[in-house]
Amino acid sequence: MKTGQLITVEGSDGSGKTTHLDYICTCLRNRGVPVVQTREPGGTDIGEALRNILIRRVDLEMHADTELLLMFAARMEHVEKVIRPALKSGTWVVVDRFIDASYAYQGGGRGISAKRIGVLEKWVLQGLSPDLTILLDVAVDVGLGRTVSRNADADRFEAQDLEFKSAVRDSYLDRARQDPNRIRVVDASAPKTAVQESIRAILEPVMGQFPGLT
Amino acid sequence: MKTGQLITVEGSDGSGKTTHLDYICTCLRNRGVPVVQTREPGGTDIGEALRNILIRRVDLEMHADTELLLMFAARMEHVEKVIRPALKSGTWVVVDRFIDASYAYQGGGRGISAKRIGVLEKWVLQGLSPDLTILLDVAVDVGLGRTVSRNADADRFEAQDLEFKSAVRDSYLDRARQDPNRIRVVDASAPKTAVQESIRAILEPVMGQFPGLT
Repeated sequence: MKTGQLITVEGSDGSGKTTHLDYICTCLRNRGVPVVQTREPGGTDIGEALRNILIRRVDLEMHADTELLLMFAARMEHVEKVIRPALKSGTWVVVDRFIDASYAYQGGGRGISAKRIGVLEKWVLQGLSPDLTILLDVAVDVGLGRTVSRNADADRFEAQDLEFKSAVRDSYLDRARQDPNRIRVVDASAPKTAVQESIRAILEPVMGQFPGLT
Repeated sequence: MKTGQLITVEGSDGSGKTTHLDYICTCLRNRGVPVVQTREPGGTDIGEALRNILIRRVDLEMHADTELLLMFAARMEHVEKVIRPALKSGTWVVVDRFIDASYAYQGGGRGISAKRIGVLEKWVLQGLSPDLTILLDVAVDVGLGRTVSRNADADRFEAQDLEFKSAVRDSYLDRARQDPNRIRVVDASAPKTAVQESIRAILEPVMGQFPGLT
């Protein structure tokens, strides 16, 4: 049975993630690959309601473990209602943040152990893993500058301090070192065209494995 | 170090839970026991926001596993922000539904395995367990009649069918059989004064263990 590929895009705030997500989807569509673009937390009615609580509600303080459980609740819904059905039908799924973000933000950023996160990963994903992850890496001070220039009203995560953002970046890079075949690091501080060239070079062999779709 | 007791009250819709919760708290307060009364899902800002999604938003369909994760997210916050601090300070906590409700509603009602629920129980409660659970048991048809007469606008759980409600009741009774020392079953179809007599008889030895509070 032919199934779609799950491509996840990770990166800190200010890494140009939104622009590059669009570029990835365009590359795939230009090759005739059926694509669904989605995001976490979100991607479903319940996921978007949770996103509102998790990202926008800066007034809502919560325990780090609660935040992680909510991220995984949104992911559960997203996986069962959107991702698995799409993959099963042969559609590729491009997600703005997925499992690695939990290890980076709630692990590195908030200090929850990888072992504890792993229990929930197993419970929720039940073996599902991204086929390819593109990590848009950018130094924390560069990312910060871009975020501030874009939006003065920082959300719950954008409002975190430099130490938090450094820990998030370090966690992402650690995970990339542990799983270099799946997680491909792209220097997102380079000019946009250079970043896109790097992304295309990573996508090419993945798309090429499916000659029926060209 | 003296700590408070955690008393949970469980029961299906229409078991008179609200009235009897008030009675329990009154009994304790009359004996000089410091009490916090709270509920699940809820009991914190984030918990009440989740309660709104879980109970009120009948328009939001969700996967059973998502529902369970949200219940545990609300519980995580509740345990860390309300229950543990209160118990530590010597205050007793009386909760309207707690861990057994997850096994009854998402286990019995929605069909999630006890093993799967157990993983989240361990993750979230980390060993915390109610000291006493009062299960207000009522036949499903009696409970249904009471719910309908009380409120024509059924919520996401009240709107479930007879089979769901029977499975919930059976799960509660099963758990009571497995843990008879902690879970005490009270026939809630009896007249109110008789139910209150039963509850008082259960509470008496618990309160009596703390002579300093009389």
